[in-house]
Amino acid sequence: MGHTAIDHILRVPRFPDRNGSTYVSDHQVFFGGGAANTASGIARLGTPVTLVSAVGGEFAGSEYERWLTSLGVERDLVVAQGKRTPRAFVFTDDAGDQVTYFEWGASETFAAREAPALDFVHLATADPGFNVRVAEKGRLVSFDPGQDIIWYTADQIRRILARIRILFANRHEMAHLTRILGMPRDAILEGLPVAVETRDAEGSVLYTGGREHRVPVIPVDVVDPTGAGDAYRAGFLAAYHRGYPPLTACRVGATTASFVVEKAGCQTNLPDWNRMAVRYRTHFGDLPEPGVREG
Amino acid sequence: MGHTAIDHILRVPRFPDRNGSTYVSDHQVFFGGGAANTASGIARLGTPVTLVSAVGGEFAGSEYERWLTSLGVERDLVVAQGKRTPRAFVFTDDAGDQVTYFEWGASETFAAREAPALDFVHLATADPGFNVRVAEKGRLVSFDPGQDIIWYTADQIRRILARIRILFANRHEMAHLTRILGMPRDAILEGLPVAVETRDAEGSVLYTGGREHRVPVIPVDVVDPTGAGDAYRAGFLAAYHRGYPPLTACRVGATTASFVVEKAGCQTNLPDWNRMAVRYRTHFGDLPEPGVREG
Repeated sequence: MGHTAIDHILRVPRFPDRNGSTYVSDHQVFFGGGAANTASGIARLGTPVTLVSAVGGEFAGSEYERWLTSLGVERDLVVAQGKRTPRAFVFTDDAGDQVTYFEWGASETFAAREAPALDFVHLATADPGFNVRVAEKGRLVSFDPGQDIIWYTADQIRRILARIRILFANRHEMAHLTRILGMPRDAILEGLPVAVETRDAEGSVLYTGGREHRVPVIPVDVVDPTGAGDAYRAGFLAAYHRGYPPLTACRVGATTASFVVEKAGCQTNLPDWNRMAVRYRTHFGDLPEPGVREG
Repeated sequence: MGHTAIDHILRVPRFPDRNGSTYVSDHQVFFGGGAANTASGIARLGTPVTLVSAVGGEFAGSEYERWLTSLGVERDLVVAQGKRTPRAFVFTDDAGDQVTYFEWGASETFAAREAPALDFVHLATADPGFNVRVAEKGRLVSFDPGQDIIWYTADQIRRILARIRILFANRHEMAHLTRILGMPRDAILEGLPVAVETRDAEGSVLYTGGREHRVPVIPVDVVDPTGAGDAYRAGFLAAYHRGYPPLTACRVGATTASFVVEKAGCQTNLPDWNRMAVRYRTHFGDLPEPGVREG
């Protein structure tokens, strides 16, 4: 649940000064949006998934729609008339620095949307109020505040954390949580059944049952790190849904992410379960038998 | 001759820091590109015109194509496979400052294009080398270096100035010309039959026959100044082509521009000749009889 977006990745020699201009030397368009990336990854791994999101009127009949259909992603989409499917404009300069402009467009409709009651929902986030309502109605809830974390009040964060089974955050988001809640990091983590902190090239850390487990990244030739986080979440959630324990799910996440960074775009090189499993075994050993998740 | 582009006008609360992000609160898409804006303005004023430009494969059947057809703009377009119609991404913050990212896309094909021999050509600019070749083959040549002025060598500028009948430039471009040529401004202007310097809200200055004439802007409610320069050039060129003297052509240019700034977008409120003439008379008195241009 969250954003479906079109990612515009633009290369410039340098960022323009205020009231200046520059030229774009490369412009690529990819399928994106945190929720859509995660749903596509889950579907590709063979797990049934529904993308709950919002798109513009131009989405119907688009390549993106056909792509999601080809992956088998079920969709529960609000079509916001007069608004566009959200877009991210990401400019990268020759020094490798980035600036991002995110256009909410159709995602603005989340705020007024009625929250569904769902059995297993991953909040890839969008509107904080909507996410609180979904979290409070959901049975098994996973939460990834992502860049939208800055829009949440402390009360909204508290209400969501009180409901969730799984938290995903990167280092910046984890630091933001400690600030906004005025709580030390350990106190936040102790209150959660499962928390995963992703740390880019340094891998990820799983906190569960009072213990900390480190999961390394799988070394590959990285072409584009964008989408690694969403692919990791897709791998984790697909494995967790199959009944694997959290540590195995983290490793499946790391393995899934290792494919996505090998190509440009967030949904470009998603592995199916078998392809993922081959690489998993090479790096982490045999995949254990999944257990039965009691929910 | 020059760019046909899609203008993306995006509003943000503030520009992001390096490696930061912001959100887009408004995103409008308009028909743009200096050459296309000027051609549309000329066609709307009832003068036959051909747009010599380059577009991407997605242009065929687009709204933009239909719009140009509806205005009666003839087209000589290179369709660059695998490239997009050029785009400008213009971000404006709450302080009113702008940053512009221009994607050449299909316009990159100008460099290798064979120059046509034309009777009356306005170089709304794109590739410097192509413009030199067109200027050297053209009979009556008008030149507007625009933002692309930074790409010209001194030699290219010299070769074009040696050929042209009319120069258009704003203050920044005029200053750039004096620097790159190492010549005082008066020496540049004296070498040209007609030169027009546009000065935003301060109107324009015509230099011709050793004299300087000031033309004020027509006071209107300005909604969006973008496109004023191209509309001015369209008005000037349409009037000049009809046989009006340069000073009258400047006034027609100022009148045409006064319509375009009343609405957002560069091609949104283009006047036909009669609508233009009514406003002209209110501000500048009767339109004189056009003379016969001897070429």
